Amino acid sequence: MTRVHAKDIRIVLVEPSHPGNIGGAARAMKTMGVADLGIVDPLRFPDPQAVWRAAGAVDVVNGARVFGHLDDAIADCGWVVGTSARSRRVPWPVATVGEFAERLVREDLGGKPVAILFGREDRGLTNDELECCNLHVMIPANPEYPSLNLAMAVQVVCYEVRRALTRDNTAAATADPSPAAGENSQPDLPTDWDRSPATAADLAALYRHFGQVLSAIEFHDPKNPRLTMTRLRRMFARIHPDQTEVAILRGVLTRIERILARTTNPHG
Amino acid sequence: MTRVHAKDIRIVLVEPSHPGNIGGAARAMKTMGVADLGIVDPLRFPDPQAVWRAAGAVDVVNGARVFGHLDDAIADCGWVVGTSARSRRVPWPVATVGEFAERLVREDLGGKPVAILFGREDRGLTNDELECCNLHVMIPANPEYPSLNLAMAVQVVCYEVRRALTRDNTAAATADPSPAAGENSQPDLPTDWDRSPATAADLAALYRHFGQVLSAIEFHDPKNPRLTMTRLRRMFARIHPDQTEVAILRGVLTRIERILARTTNPHG
Repeated sequence: MTRVHAKDIRIVLVEPSHPGNIGGAARAMKTMGVADLGIVDPLRFPDPQAVWRAAGAVDVVNGARVFGHLDDAIADCGWVVGTSARSRRVPWPVATVGEFAERLVREDLGGKPVAILFGREDRGLTNDELECCNLHVMIPANPEYPSLNLAMAVQVVCYEVRRALTRDNTAAATADPSPAAGENSQPDLPTDWDRSPATAADLAALYRHFGQVLSAIEFHDPKNPRLTMTRLRRMFARIHPDQTEVAILRGVLTRIERILARTTNPHG
Repeated sequence: MTRVHAKDIRIVLVEPSHPGNIGGAARAMKTMGVADLGIVDPLRFPDPQAVWRAAGAVDVVNGARVFGHLDDAIADCGWVVGTSARSRRVPWPVATVGEFAERLVREDLGGKPVAILFGREDRGLTNDELECCNLHVMIPANPEYPSLNLAMAVQVVCYEVRRALTRDNTAAATADPSPAAGENSQPDLPTDWDRSPATAADLAALYRHFGQVLSAIEFHDPKNPRLTMTRLRRMFARIHPDQTEVAILRGVLTRIERILARTTNPHG
């Protein structure tokens, strides 16, 4: 089994407005041994404020990669989680940051990165962004004032991730892993899985393909057409398919498209 | 037994230099339901920067008490812990913030406050200050860069304290304690899921339907035809699809069958 390590964790900030928060997030990451920072369409970056707030984590700021779109920031990732309140459109698989960290140590992503998405300071992640996620992660907080500063949220999540990964390495060293951990464990893929998990890019392509076929066969939820794709996305997000499974589904969809082409063009 | 509650937690900042950190600490406290802030001999306070960084936690900043000496800030406390590296003079009882939080829920202080001391941004707590503490608390961090920002450290400590106190209250409230809670903590479907799960019969019907369509479109895994269905079953077996999801998939399959009927029988 290829365990997840701190180096596999990618923090992705989506459209942050304040460069100070980018620096604060970088410092928070480095204190917990996380170094891979992706920034999607920042308002101001690079910026001296980011460097100043980063303190001793300037290397993380300088190493940060800026992306024009979220899809590019997560394309190679084997698991994508979004920090936020739940999607407003439909409920999504959700875990506390503690539960997420426990699951993380049991994931086998074949060394693929794990993306943890943090939304805008004022509005968080959009529904479309949340629907790119396999899991939504919440930081339990005071219901009367749950609004952690962006860098603070990064600090808490990285703290939990580091603690779980560190404890797991210790546990891995010992002969018997805790039975409680085994009991709570619901890995997306069994540890002896025979294929590597689909990447976010594989899934995005599958959803596009599915959408094409649904319109080609004129399949619509009369009540709410968009909702159909949302529900399908949510279902596959829970399945966390491996690459063979995605290949089979894409094959089925392609085959259907060929037949449709014949239908519409009988002489073809 | 008089349990420790969030209201009993007092955060004490010793000689903070940056008012922004006081505001950040106040915000971090409030997000975790902690409101009692003591400040010992601050360099600049009150200060507009503290109010600005506090965001929605201005009430905590305005309610903060300033003390001339640490002794006055902790005089009424039943337990005093210091966050820092260990005392440089003599070894001291030490715990991780997680261990501290676990101990906290088992303490009976007769309702007396618990003081958690945070030192100066640059030098932390002095040996004299550390020796006022019953326990020294460490935040496990990257040994190559362990320096959390002051407000970040307050965030992590308050997060752990709130989690422990909340979990303890929940466990105390429920008849059936942690094991069940642990299992329920990672459901296939969130507890607020909007549809009921599909039955085994629903799934069996879905698999049959899938198989029919696959043969109708002559979709075969060249290497191993039967393996395709096995992989599809395994994929859906990993989640509990809800009944709406099964209904959508069945709807898609039916729609495809209708189109196929037209293809094979254009006059139909």
